[in-house]
Amino acid sequence: MRLARRMADVKASEIREILKITERPEVISFAGGLPAPELFPIAQMIDADRIVLESNGRQALQYSTTEGFGPLRAWIANRLNTRQGLAYDADNVLITHGSQQALDLSGKVFLDEGDVVLCESPTYLAAISAFRAYGCRFVEVATDEQGMVASDLEACLEANPDTKLIYVIPDFQNPTGRTWSIERRRRLAELSAQYGVPVLEDNPYGELRFEGEPLPPVKSFDQSGNVLSLGTFSKILAPGYRIGWIAGDKDIISKYVMVKQGVDLQCNTLAQMVIAKYLELNDIDQHIDVIRTTYRRRRDLAVATMEDAFPASVTFTRPSGGLFLWVELPDHINAQDLLVTCLEHDVAFVPGGSFFPNGGHDNTLRINFSNMPDDKIVEGLRRIGDILKDMC
Amino acid sequence: MRLARRMADVKASEIREILKITERPEVISFAGGLPAPELFPIAQMIDADRIVLESNGRQALQYSTTEGFGPLRAWIANRLNTRQGLAYDADNVLITHGSQQALDLSGKVFLDEGDVVLCESPTYLAAISAFRAYGCRFVEVATDEQGMVASDLEACLEANPDTKLIYVIPDFQNPTGRTWSIERRRRLAELSAQYGVPVLEDNPYGELRFEGEPLPPVKSFDQSGNVLSLGTFSKILAPGYRIGWIAGDKDIISKYVMVKQGVDLQCNTLAQMVIAKYLELNDIDQHIDVIRTTYRRRRDLAVATMEDAFPASVTFTRPSGGLFLWVELPDHINAQDLLVTCLEHDVAFVPGGSFFPNGGHDNTLRINFSNMPDDKIVEGLRRIGDILKDMC
Repeated sequence: MRLARRMADVKASEIREILKITERPEVISFAGGLPAPELFPIAQMIDADRIVLESNGRQALQYSTTEGFGPLRAWIANRLNTRQGLAYDADNVLITHGSQQALDLSGKVFLDEGDVVLCESPTYLAAISAFRAYGCRFVEVATDEQGMVASDLEACLEANPDTKLIYVIPDFQNPTGRTWSIERRRRLAELSAQYGVPVLEDNPYGELRFEGEPLPPVKSFDQSGNVLSLGTFSKILAPGYRIGWIAGDKDIISKYVMVKQGVDLQCNTLAQMVIAKYLELNDIDQHIDVIRTTYRRRRDLAVATMEDAFPASVTFTRPSGGLFLWVELPDHINAQDLLVTCLEHDVAFVPGGSFFPNGGHDNTLRINFSNMPDDKIVEGLRRIGDILKDMC
Repeated sequence: MRLARRMADVKASEIREILKITERPEVISFAGGLPAPELFPIAQMIDADRIVLESNGRQALQYSTTEGFGPLRAWIANRLNTRQGLAYDADNVLITHGSQQALDLSGKVFLDEGDVVLCESPTYLAAISAFRAYGCRFVEVATDEQGMVASDLEACLEANPDTKLIYVIPDFQNPTGRTWSIERRRRLAELSAQYGVPVLEDNPYGELRFEGEPLPPVKSFDQSGNVLSLGTFSKILAPGYRIGWIAGDKDIISKYVMVKQGVDLQCNTLAQMVIAKYLELNDIDQHIDVIRTTYRRRRDLAVATMEDAFPASVTFTRPSGGLFLWVELPDHINAQDLLVTCLEHDVAFVPGGSFFPNGGHDNTLRINFSNMPDDKIVEGLRRIGDILKDMC
């Protein structure tokens, strides 16, 4: 068998491999991006499931349209309209198999071999996997506490006329937890229009803000129709359903629909109808408040523990929302080596190097604070701190 | 925005567009490939759903492994072992988002731009869409009532050294309803080994045999590990869950797993656990018997009505299983024109030209007989017959 050339670049996700090790129940894991499962509204989902299947089982178990379940798409359009000041209807929204699938579909819609994708440095690991399969090159745009540095973004666009996509996570970014300033958002929308390059604004964590006011999305500054919005129910309801979306101008969304037909025909009909039923019967904002309260407490615990237990030469971000924070170690410490020692002490995280498509930055790591109960957060971070003190 | 070059070849599925028209309840549709929804085991699925969520909700709504839910993969491996004489375990099986996703993943694993895919002539429409997105060329192998003509298959392999995949549906093929002979299956496995070209053996309908004995799959003649088996719960349980699989040697399945990580991380956790629970609590073979009995009766009705109502110059297949039969009209009749007239009389089918990746054959059409109740099958085919008599 002769494989496609792209397979030379495809490798197993480092996180997923680490996650397999951390399945041992004694491991305290800060590695995944897993929501807190004790917050899943299980009783409500059982009700929604039963109601949908009893009242509409034949439809729920049958094939349906590629675009997705109409009432769910309308709910998403309405939420984007009220939260982000848009004027969408259901036809601006395609339901995807998690927002991850929207990344893969974006690769199919936009990327030829050798095309350039501009991304934050660092960026979401599985976006790298999704785009890399289309043979693109990544150009990492310099990124600070405010988001992509606008002058560097412009220089990268100027230097790479074959840029086809700009990929960003402006709210509580994965992996850094950082949030873009308003000015940087506006500037990205302007540069996207000026250079005619579409922006994928990935926003899985935006609803999970712990303090301060929500910032307007990049989309709200978009005059050109170049900004596409990715979202998901994974972090505000449950990831097991694999239901996310991509929203944008109807002409480009219709291209995504055609591509999705060949990829997998459609998303799970029942899952879409059950989520729509849940949204009809329950107040999801109340549920999101519970998630935010829990994650805020865990963020506070994580930050306080790290301030106390980590050596002073280690720096880290203090995100105001989301699931992750980002650690920079002294240059001479390799996070892969640290992980090996930590796993011997039953505690795990993800080394940061994987989040840089062009390599380097081996002295960084990502901590997820949403998934472990409070006492394990303290215990696990203390263990990492002790090991770090030995290494520093 | 500049799209990828492949988007020039991507178009909306003709079937899905026809299906939208046929949503009017008065239309008698033979167009889709939809199972009979009145046979879905809704009560059993409600039970399975509730049991899984009550006993294991946190796991069922959480992220899980890319490979899929272990007990479900083990069930599939076991079924392939008993039905097809294999010796698989769970690690030979990857759960996919319908078997359609296994086609897309196969494109990613095997196809570079310009590579050749050998397929039956005609072949499954959405396989053409899936592979075409990878920029392949299709070479149609001459196909008769026994399957691919072995001498033509060999000639095609000889003439196209850049062949990367052979795609076949040996049981109750979509769109023709034909079933390959044992000899042709054996010969395909031999030629695949000789030329080192993998075979995708797609088998969504094999369990739906109406008469006669099951034939051994191509896989059973495979000495080289070149044959990959695609399957799905869509036709034996319900398509709404979007749960299918690809099975094969572990080294190649592990490549598919890596590709799927970037594509969508994993399939719906709950759907996998619910299907596994259904299989544990129910006798699916009993359920499949109900489906087979119903579809056999509908096949009988369709064939008898067509023998009675269609002009003698129209020929058609008499499949011994599955969901479809295939009609050839006199050369001068275009099935697209026929469809226009039929839609005016509220009856629909799919013109056959779309099933030939390189075009032509406009005098053919596909009839689905699984989805309409008995009386509508008779009424709808009589209407088509009347229109055909006017045209012939």
